[in-house]
Amino acid sequence: MIPMKTPVRIAVTGAAGQINYSLLFRIASGELFGPDQPIILHLLEIPQAMQHLQAIVMELEDCAYPLLFAIQLSDDPNEAFRDVDYAFLIGARPRGPGMKRADLLDANAQIFATQAQALNQYAHRNVKVLVCGNPANTNCLVAIANAPDLNPGNFSAMTRLDHNRAISMLAKQCGVLTSDIKCMTVWGNHSCTQYPDVYHAKVKGKPAIQLIDEQWVTETFIPTIQFRGAEIIKIRGQSSAASAANAAIDHMRTWVNGTGHGDWVSMAVQTDGHYGISKGLVFSYPVICQNGDYEIVQNLEINKISRQRLKQSEKELLEERKQVKNLLLPS
Amino acid sequence: MIPMKTPVRIAVTGAAGQINYSLLFRIASGELFGPDQPIILHLLEIPQAMQHLQAIVMELEDCAYPLLFAIQLSDDPNEAFRDVDYAFLIGARPRGPGMKRADLLDANAQIFATQAQALNQYAHRNVKVLVCGNPANTNCLVAIANAPDLNPGNFSAMTRLDHNRAISMLAKQCGVLTSDIKCMTVWGNHSCTQYPDVYHAKVKGKPAIQLIDEQWVTETFIPTIQFRGAEIIKIRGQSSAASAANAAIDHMRTWVNGTGHGDWVSMAVQTDGHYGISKGLVFSYPVICQNGDYEIVQNLEINKISRQRLKQSEKELLEERKQVKNLLLPS
Repeated sequence: MIPMKTPVRIAVTGAAGQINYSLLFRIASGELFGPDQPIILHLLEIPQAMQHLQAIVMELEDCAYPLLFAIQLSDDPNEAFRDVDYAFLIGARPRGPGMKRADLLDANAQIFATQAQALNQYAHRNVKVLVCGNPANTNCLVAIANAPDLNPGNFSAMTRLDHNRAISMLAKQCGVLTSDIKCMTVWGNHSCTQYPDVYHAKVKGKPAIQLIDEQWVTETFIPTIQFRGAEIIKIRGQSSAASAANAAIDHMRTWVNGTGHGDWVSMAVQTDGHYGISKGLVFSYPVICQNGDYEIVQNLEINKISRQRLKQSEKELLEERKQVKNLLLPS
Repeated sequence: MIPMKTPVRIAVTGAAGQINYSLLFRIASGELFGPDQPIILHLLEIPQAMQHLQAIVMELEDCAYPLLFAIQLSDDPNEAFRDVDYAFLIGARPRGPGMKRADLLDANAQIFATQAQALNQYAHRNVKVLVCGNPANTNCLVAIANAPDLNPGNFSAMTRLDHNRAISMLAKQCGVLTSDIKCMTVWGNHSCTQYPDVYHAKVKGKPAIQLIDEQWVTETFIPTIQFRGAEIIKIRGQSSAASAANAAIDHMRTWVNGTGHGDWVSMAVQTDGHYGISKGLVFSYPVICQNGDYEIVQNLEINKISRQRLKQSEKELLEERKQVKNLLLPS
């Protein structure tokens, strides 16, 4: 028998959605925190989805997971986030027919502001909050602004799916295993302005750029990663769910357990102006995780092509920030 | 770095279906065989589902799983089962509108006969085959009959979802953790004639039957487990997928790694007449797994009530066997 730790409380939003249908069963099985860490799930949903959520709870029970000590359901963030150690903010309003991008931003920003206020008031003071719901970077920015009593370093937005896609594609191109790729970076916004950057990546310890053609990078690699999500929707008829859930697990596990030796991951975090990006934006950077904290990798050389792409993603994030400015309290 | 083993080949059928959308990502992450066991996935689907399967392959690639060495797609069992070490037979024809139960049995038996012939010819001689597609017991029987060169002990059908449901429900009733329940048994057919039997179950080492009311067992526990699948379909609008995938992982992992000390699991396996059940049927029994083999637990006392229920499930299986008799070659 493995001696059991004190249970941790893990909240998810959009609990009845597709990503959570993949995520919850993997969290409950112990994939996130290992076989000696009991879990209490806090499931947040809107009232209309509660019946569907009930079926998911039944299926979770039907797994007889030894680590799943309890499941709590709520449609109230103030209840759902009480004492939670981890929060996966996954639920977001999808773009409806005829809805403008600005309206979508607004609607989602409001949701994340409300949730952040609840986290601010009720969550554990060291809660780690991962924002997956789109537009993830700006939703994360809104969340940080609306949780003034929590450290902004407790919040991050997910670009790990883009990061994993970039690793996988580079590995395939070089004919190596994904574990042979280190130091991949995705910069910027989790949108099609993101910049998957191979200039610092290593393949079996060698600079990737020595093994691949720059034309392939520009014409194939970068646009494929940028538009991969749309491509999957086209073929699958639905957006990525299982791979997004997998990235969420990877992101949180790395944040908690640390990055591998000589490697880093991509996380969107609030910047202090790193690499010339406007202070305060939530921007994806290469980060090293250790002891439950992340640190942005500093002093990487950014060539002219890369600089332009960073600026392009920054520009989009500045526009998004302007659109939600009424929800960004003075800090 | 963990030293890597030789990759194992794992085939799944119905690869683009809902259960596999949960199962494949958990297998590829290492949940089934651990972090030092590389995996090659063999995905079998019908031609019409190949495009949808392509999106799932993209998502598997997008996870950059370090253990997933390769993915092979095919619509031909002779190709898909070549050299496989494990096979999850999940795809089955669902009951269409106006389709009689006998027609459904026929259609599925034909699918499993063809797949078993391919396994017989091309799979690794120690392949472990788990039949999940319904009617699972009889499909498994057909598979055994059509793979005469493989040991019948290499085949089993899944009643682990029922087993897990029974553990979970008993744990809830007794106010204990699922890991406090041992020696649960599900007997018979994976259908509503199954018999979830608490008479040998232990709760924290004590006989369960001393802690619960027999009326609750008969009137609540047994019918709830028997009809749980239908209840989930009613609420969810779809059959159980994530919990079925979880049970498939549990089943295969226990088969390979063994049962816990002083415990057993339920597996539907071909009987030699154990507990008075007709020889040759695939019937769910309490089994102990060790060194990659299962052994039916012998000499349990079967009371009169239990005996009747075993007989009822046997009767259903005998009828199913009669309906597929043209596919049961003389052995």
